[in-house]
Formats: sequence, C-alpha cells, structure tokens
Amino acid sequence: MAQSSARLLELIGKPVQDIDTPALVIDLDAMKRNLGRMADFAKKHQVRWRPHAKLHKSVLLAKMQIKAGAAGVCVQKTAEAEIMVAGGVHNVYLSNQVIAPEKLARVAALTQAVAPHGGQIAIAVDSAEGITRLAQAMTDARTSARIGAASAATVIDVFVEIDVGQGRCGVPPGEAAVALALEIRRHPALRFAGLQAYHGKAQHLRSALERRLATASALQAVDLTCQLLTAQGMTPGLVTGAGTGSFALEAASGLYGELQPGSFLFMDADYAQNERDPAQPLFEQALFVKTQVISLQASHAVCDAGHKSHAIDSGLPKVHAFDAKSGLDYFNGGDEHGILRSAEGSTRLPALGKMLWLIPGHCDPTVNLHDVMIGVSGGLRAGIVERLIKVDARGALT
Amino acid sequence: MAQSSARLLELIGKPVQDIDTPALVIDLDAMKRNLGRMADFAKKHQVRWRPHAKLHKSVLLAKMQIKAGAAGVCVQKTAEAEIMVAGGVHNVYLSNQVIAPEKLARVAALTQAVAPHGGQIAIAVDSAEGITRLAQAMTDARTSARIGAASAATVIDVFVEIDVGQGRCGVPPGEAAVALALEIRRHPALRFAGLQAYHGKAQHLRSALERRLATASALQAVDLTCQLLTAQGMTPGLVTGAGTGSFALEAASGLYGELQPGSFLFMDADYAQNERDPAQPLFEQALFVKTQVISLQASHAVCDAGHKSHAIDSGLPKVHAFDAKSGLDYFNGGDEHGILRSAEGSTRLPALGKMLWLIPGHCDPTVNLHDVMIGVSGGLRAGIVERLIKVDARGALT
Repeated sequence: MAQSSARLLELIGKPVQDIDTPALVIDLDAMKRNLGRMADFAKKHQVRWRPHAKLHKSVLLAKMQIKAGAAGVCVQKTAEAEIMVAGGVHNVYLSNQVIAPEKLARVAALTQAVAPHGGQIAIAVDSAEGITRLAQAMTDARTSARIGAASAATVIDVFVEIDVGQGRCGVPPGEAAVALALEIRRHPALRFAGLQAYHGKAQHLRSALERRLATASALQAVDLTCQLLTAQGMTPGLVTGAGTGSFALEAASGLYGELQPGSFLFMDADYAQNERDPAQPLFEQALFVKTQVISLQASHAVCDAGHKSHAIDSGLPKVHAFDAKSGLDYFNGGDEHGILRSAEGSTRLPALGKMLWLIPGHCDPTVNLHDVMIGVSGGLRAGIVERLIKVDARGALT
Repeated sequence: MAQSSARLLELIGKPVQDIDTPALVIDLDAMKRNLGRMADFAKKHQVRWRPHAKLHKSVLLAKMQIKAGAAGVCVQKTAEAEIMVAGGVHNVYLSNQVIAPEKLARVAALTQAVAPHGGQIAIAVDSAEGITRLAQAMTDARTSARIGAASAATVIDVFVEIDVGQGRCGVPPGEAAVALALEIRRHPALRFAGLQAYHGKAQHLRSALERRLATASALQAVDLTCQLLTAQGMTPGLVTGAGTGSFALEAASGLYGELQPGSFLFMDADYAQNERDPAQPLFEQALFVKTQVISLQASHAVCDAGHKSHAIDSGLPKVHAFDAKSGLDYFNGGDEHGILRSAEGSTRLPALGKMLWLIPGHCDPTVNLHDVMIGVSGGLRAGIVERLIKVDARGALT
C-alpha cells in the first residue's frame, strides 16, 4: 500500500486527533450498532441476509457480518470473490454477469476451493451464452479436479437475473427467465437456485412513498416470474436482491428469501437524504473522511480532501456537525482539495490546521479509494484508534 | 496490489486481446508522441517544464519525462513526494499547501534526502503560519542532521501561491504575496523561489478565446505581483504554473519560466472537448479503459467498467471509435457497470463478450483507481503488451 504501513500501525491506541489527513475512518461503535440492527431485523422477519461486500471489500468485515448471522457475502467481481475465499469466506455469491471464459474458469476453481469447507459459490446469469460458458468452465474444472467424488460433483448455484426496473443487467421478467432456468437445468454442474432481482434505482428515490411504489412494481415482476417458473415445475428456491434503501419492503413481501444490502453498515450522505420508511431500521453514519484546513482565504477555507479521497458520483460530501449545524458547506475543489464556505446564517470559517470530518456522498466507491480504513472506538471526538481494517479487494476490478 | 501480479506479468509480450477487463491501458506510441511534442514545445519556447506527477503517480514515467528534458516533477501530496524521492526522482516540487507539522517534518527530511544527489525540494505557501511551521521543520531537520556543512545548509525552495482565478488556495495577487515573500526571507533555511500561479478553471473553458481571456487576466495578476516584488528588491526567480489547457499562453507571456501540465501525456475526454488553441501542440488520446460487454438486452448492452474503473468527476467516458464513429454512447451504470446504447443514427449493439475501449472523462483520478497501467505498443487494434507501469503513488493521500 502507498500509505506508510509503519506510520499507520503506530496509530493503534492513539487518540483520533493523531490520525493524519486525509484518512478514511470508521466509527466502530456506530458500525456495530448498524450491524446489530440489520441482524435483528433479519431475525425478526425470518429472512436471510447476505450483505454486499463490494461496499467494504474487507475479509475482516465480511467475517464479522457472518458471525452476526449473515448467510455469506455478495460480491460483484471475480477478483473480489477470489479475495474473499482466500481470506476464509466460503459462502460467496457473485451477483453479477461474468462472460469471459478465463474468468469463468476462475469462478469454477472457487467452487472446488470452498467445497472442502462446506462452502458454496453462487453466480448470476442473464443469457443462454453465459450459461453455456459457465457450464463449460464447471465441466473443465470437474475434469481437471479428478480427485474423487466430492470435487467431481461440485455444483454452482445459479440465479437468473431479471430486470425489475434498474435497466441494467437481467432479462425481462417472465418467459425469458423461464427459458434461462430451463437452460440451466440441462447442465448437471449448474443448480438453478432462484432469481436475482435488484432494483438499484429504487434505493435512492427520496420519498418513502416513491420507494414503496417502485418496489411494488418490482415485486409484481418477481411474483409473475415465480408463478411461471412454478407452472414449469421450477419454483425458485430463493429470490435474492434488495438494497439499503428498500430491503424492509422486499422482506415484507414474502417473495424474497434473501436480502443483499451493503451500505447499511456505513451509510452515506446520499442515503441520509432518503426519507426513512417506517418499516426500515434506523442506521447511523459510521464512515468518515478526516480532513484538515490547509488554506484560509477571506471568502473560503480549503481542506485536503478532494475526489481522490472520496467518490462524488452521488454528490459531494457533507461536513459532519457534532452539534446541530457545522455551519460549513463543501464545494468541489478538484482531486485533492475541498472548498469550504460558511453556510447561510453562519459567518465563521475554520482556522488553518483545523480538523474536520466529511460524510462521503457514496460509501462504496469511497472505500475503494483507500488501502485502509481506520477503526475508531469511543466516537470521533474523544475516541481512540482501535484497529486498522485493510480494504483487501481495493482495485479488484477483474 | 489486489490484481493478481502473476496474471499481469504473464501478459507481457501477449496481444492486446489477452488483456482481461476492465483494465487501464496506455497506448505507449501515442504517449511517447505526446511527450516528444511537449519537449519540443518547451525547447522551442525556451521554457522549463515540470510535469505534474499527480497524473501518473509513476516513478518510471517521471524519469521518462526527466530524460525527455523535464526539470523534475510537481506533486500534490507529501506522500507522493516521498514515493518519487524513494524511487530516485530528486527534483520534486510540492505545488500545494502543507500545514500539519508532522507532514512538514517529512518534507524537511526529503530536502536532506535529495541533497547528496544534487536534487532540490520545493514547496508552495500561502500563509504566514505555513511559513513559520515550514521554517521550524527545516530548522529541526538541520539540527537533527548534525552531519556536516552540506546538510546543515540545506534549503527548501519556497513559492508563494497566488490565486489567479481558480478560487482555491493562494493569497490574492499583489501586496499579500509581497508580505509572504518578505516573511520567507526572514528564515535562512527557506529560499524565496518565486510565484506559484495556476489557473485551474481556465484549463477547461471550451473555446480557445475564453481560455485566452481567462489566462490574460491571470497574466495581469502575475505581472502586477512581480512588479511589486521587484520594487521590494525581490524579483521572483521563477513564475511556475499552467496546465494542459493553457500552457502555450503562459509560455508566450514571457512571465512564466516553468510550465506544470500533466494531462498532456495521456489526455482525456474532457480535454478532448476543448477547442484547440493554434499555439498549443496537438496531443493524442493515450489512456484507455479496456472493457467487455457482459450483458446484452433489447435496448442496451452492459459493459464491465463503471466508476470504480474510471473517474466521472469530469463526465462519463466516451466509447473509443477506431473509425469515424463508434455508434455507441456510454451511460452511467454505477460502480461496476456501464450502459451502452446505440448513438443516434446507429442501430447496432455490440455482441456479448465484445471488447471495447473507453476514453476516461478525467485522466488523473482514473489512474488513481488502478494499481497498474498496462503499456501497449503497436496500437490498440493489433499491438502487444510491452510493459506494466506501476501506479507507485496510488492512494498516496497524506
């Protein structure tokens, strides 16, 4: 990692004040409360949860989630799956399309790797070509395994992805999904596990009513597809999907057996703008970028965190206020700078050298900019650095 | 690095077709032509150039630029400077504000580290407090060096940053800059080296005329400040600044002795939208994200590069067209996906598995997402992988 490891290790046990800037910091107390609330929710609603590890990309946090009751993790990339498995996370669902034969060979190798641990690899598909290629990779892996019945019988769980409103991957709900399920059934190394149905756009609709309406439409699509599958004798074992913005609705539907939210663990400025649905647990902001004022001018201050420190795809970060108002607004200052101006009704700019905390606009790609998350216990004001959490799969793109 | 190093090393000598996706790829031939054009320009206009290494964050490319005639490199972060110096780049200008005493101690240590190599560290300041802290760090470093005249006499070059229109760091042009120069002169370990004057906003104005007007205003501010400094017997040794969008104008001014462009080496979709000024050399696109179609639906295709593969702060990537038109437009598909739709007048979507090349919206933060740049010679269509170029300072934020 580019940051000096020695300098980072020296931080453990030190007060938060000593954290150099900019740095990605987790409020561990808040994170653990978020985790507990998610686990409680799943227990109460008798639904599996498989949090998305594309958020934190950390083996340690994946294991913490599994210990709290998660059924495993979702990932979005083959390389992420490899890193999770290598770290000892053996139930991994690649909730995405994989088409390259070289990557599918790696996926098939993972099914062999987790089998002795009683683990299971799952993957999503949305094309006949993808199924054919996956089956070929699984057959090749079984052949090259040649080491006994267990390996030769390894199967991969396959979810048919349907597009329930996201407009990205996934076949249309209905007959197209049935056709793919039938195709999966033709291959002995593939097990039709159910439906992948994630409505990404619904997550960020601001009003709870809009999210309810969008999710209701997704649920109809899922219901229809399940009925058609059942009519063909292929009732889906599981419908999996949902995100932090909507999962209480999918959970209540009776259709979804597994929830995939990731962001609930950290939260971000974008999710904070959602009107909370009464059915949804309350999650706290747990992820921050610590920054420092490096220039002070008459009209503004400049801090040392720009969009190489935090992603801005879902908007600029907010300045965290310990009290009601920070009095500061963050403006885009480029890759390495943030411009701070007094919010309306406030006239004070922070002093040169002043430490501030930013709430990133979007947690997932922000984490991906950092090698390490610095875990603080006891709060941001008077806490101490408890541990460093490596972003194991940072940059794991392939 | 998160990518499998072994898998990457195996690529060397292989055709571009073998590069797994998504991946950051440099067209080395185009990059070398860009480098040659910049070197020729500087020679012809008898101006120093010190390219900004915040673009590529690579020791290897920094050395290639110095070999081509660059006076050294600029960096934006103390950690970037450390990585450059550790890699053997001994003329480094930290063209940014540094306020934390711990960081200034590291900067002072770098002045000691490069001295035996005949190198020189420079830094920007925009506050009396910053100067006081820098002087203290330099004094401490000299004291702790205690190893002879050379180290004890080490100085750091200090540029006073003036705000010439960017509205970020820098004191106003004029008297405020003179006051800081006077302050610098009070400290024996600091050498007043001149002015840092970079007009970031001028770089991306679309018409050549707008850029000329904005730069003219910056030049007036520089000229005024130089005159005031001269009146105080402190004629600046050097005015340094300028970027890829405007440097021909600063070079022609007779005021700037050093140019800091970075992006010219790679270019990006944002700079490609600038109307080229006749005075500016022509640079080619040399940086690409290779991606692959992983899902094909009736209305769109989905590729495997989202904003964890390329920065979108300056807009979404463009689909590279080998011929006149690619016929494809890229739409935001989130962190790991891109949505491809047929451009107007075209009806064909690419096949599942099809490899495509994206031109990133903004090169600097795109590079910062990757551990490695894959250097290809012979072009993107039929070239081979010549070398891997490590992004040494990826994530070097502090």
